[in-house]
Amino acid sequence: MYAPLQNDSFLRACLRQPTPHTPVWLMRQAGRYLPEYRATRAKAGSFMGLATNTDYATEVTLQPLARYALDAAILFSDILTVPDAMGLGLSFALGEGPRFAHPVRDEAAVAKLEVPDMNRLRYVFDAVTSIRRALNGRVPLIGFSGSPWTLACYMVEGAGSDDYRLVKTMLYSRPDLMHRMLEVNAAAVAQYLNAQIEAGAQAVMIFDSWGGVLADGAFQEFSLAYTRRVLQQLKREHDGQRIPHIVFTKGGGLWLEQIADAQPDVVGLDWTVNLAAARARIGDRVALQGNLDPNVLFAGPAQIRAEVTRTLTSFGAPLDAQGRPGGHIFNLGHGISQHTPPESVSVLVDTVHEVSRQLRKAA
Amino acid sequence: MYAPLQNDSFLRACLRQPTPHTPVWLMRQAGRYLPEYRATRAKAGSFMGLATNTDYATEVTLQPLARYALDAAILFSDILTVPDAMGLGLSFALGEGPRFAHPVRDEAAVAKLEVPDMNRLRYVFDAVTSIRRALNGRVPLIGFSGSPWTLACYMVEGAGSDDYRLVKTMLYSRPDLMHRMLEVNAAAVAQYLNAQIEAGAQAVMIFDSWGGVLADGAFQEFSLAYTRRVLQQLKREHDGQRIPHIVFTKGGGLWLEQIADAQPDVVGLDWTVNLAAARARIGDRVALQGNLDPNVLFAGPAQIRAEVTRTLTSFGAPLDAQGRPGGHIFNLGHGISQHTPPESVSVLVDTVHEVSRQLRKAA
Repeated sequence: MYAPLQNDSFLRACLRQPTPHTPVWLMRQAGRYLPEYRATRAKAGSFMGLATNTDYATEVTLQPLARYALDAAILFSDILTVPDAMGLGLSFALGEGPRFAHPVRDEAAVAKLEVPDMNRLRYVFDAVTSIRRALNGRVPLIGFSGSPWTLACYMVEGAGSDDYRLVKTMLYSRPDLMHRMLEVNAAAVAQYLNAQIEAGAQAVMIFDSWGGVLADGAFQEFSLAYTRRVLQQLKREHDGQRIPHIVFTKGGGLWLEQIADAQPDVVGLDWTVNLAAARARIGDRVALQGNLDPNVLFAGPAQIRAEVTRTLTSFGAPLDAQGRPGGHIFNLGHGISQHTPPESVSVLVDTVHEVSRQLRKAA
Repeated sequence: MYAPLQNDSFLRACLRQPTPHTPVWLMRQAGRYLPEYRATRAKAGSFMGLATNTDYATEVTLQPLARYALDAAILFSDILTVPDAMGLGLSFALGEGPRFAHPVRDEAAVAKLEVPDMNRLRYVFDAVTSIRRALNGRVPLIGFSGSPWTLACYMVEGAGSDDYRLVKTMLYSRPDLMHRMLEVNAAAVAQYLNAQIEAGAQAVMIFDSWGGVLADGAFQEFSLAYTRRVLQQLKREHDGQRIPHIVFTKGGGLWLEQIADAQPDVVGLDWTVNLAAARARIGDRVALQGNLDPNVLFAGPAQIRAEVTRTLTSFGAPLDAQGRPGGHIFNLGHGISQHTPPESVSVLVDTVHEVSRQLRKAA
């Protein structure tokens, strides 16, 4: 059905198998920093117009691959498609973040929540299949979803927040309502990611973008427990291929052991985490993905090369003390900024490949 | 000169000496959640009008002590007074954060930076003395400053930021300029805090509010190194009394050992940190301050009591395994929200005192 995969370095690194270089992709690599993306977005009229149109979603997903030697593609979509399909009314005002017309703020609203009919998300699965075909085996395709907790943040707040007051008020004062919402979200996210896998996604990533705003204790109870529930329901194989599962908790550096206990294949790291320390803590159980500060891309080529090299070398030798290959996927520690000069990304990608090959030779 | 101190539980806990209960104060305890604060603020006309007027600053500092059995007072001021004294033109638009009229964004602006004449900050030192007198020995007075890095964030960005793009662009592309700015800031902060100590502050706190946005490596080089430089210059005694030094790095939980290496007396913790784990990591070297999520105060009294009790018990036994008293100062993990119901603070403070006394009896 699909062309054979030509570059499997990303999938191999996810499973801690040896690779000729460190694979690299960037969160939000298809995005506003690319002029060709802005042109397609203008044609589509709106962000959701872009995300719901199979041809446009395919076009923008492939745009960064035409410029850069990236080792993976990621579905162009939004983390909030699932609550939108629940009827919350997602929209994006230009220059602002996402907004829900019908936030979930009381017992009645929580009671009404249901796992959405996956047919309402057909446009996502169609995009996955279309992109997979268009990739033609060049690199693997990553599917994704927001985590149950991160979805709940937006569902209660109705938009981005800087203090998470509304969602945390519900969490602390009505934990029963929060648990009910998270149960629905976890069931929906598991179905959603499995449908992406069936549609052609070769790896899936759970973005727990707001897990790090929770207190110790609350993180485990309200975020990680539901991420784990999703992971337990995800297909581990499809069409005879292993499907790696990636979990990225922004601000989750203190909880790496507990995140690894949930048994993803890969743990994403933000830039506050020391890669060598993270590898020592959990590198024998999972691969690591990350973790350059996206703001490095505003410096000149020499500084970008130096910081990329520092990130690669901080991960350490290709083989660990037991002779096992370490799994490292190079990425940023957060989505790329819309203000990034596109030429900075070339420097980053090429440096990752060159330097990681040199490090393998030296080892 | 001043009345003798009646309640020294806060100072004793800072130095890891036994106390009859766990002392408690709250970051931003004199603030907008109190109607009496809003009334004084209205009289003053503006935030800076409030902060620069000795009588008003004294009045609002004491307001929360009239309502709650707090164990310390903290100077009412702003973390950005030092760059304001450097000539950057601080202002506060109502409902917005601070803003500098003259941000520092290029080599020429950095070259012009100088440690300000401390006479320009006389209003702060006058407030310290006035508050200390008005306290009349009831509880100790804490002075404070932003950290060199946190000041630099605002000085470059000109206001709050959600991505710190401008300051990090300077950091990564012109580290020489960033280091020069941080050197000036560190010298200024040290002079500023020492002048507060001379004016009557009985402890001082450095707010590294934005240290946690830095990458591992950059934090050590651009934030912690300069906080350490300040600490090394601070008076450790005044008038025969030890002056405890507190460092609070929001989002610094991964770097606790390194922060403790800088030798403050107390390390402040945000709510992502597990108190028992933090005590095991650094509790034999420093006291710990924190770390309830301020959003707990939006729940009902029973939930507030449960979460406060959980925080107290997670710190563990009053004496550690070696029989040494653990130093714990109860606080929030960040400033109190302006939306907090004032009655929630009563529940918090009273629960800290009651439960921590019970825990001491049970031990």
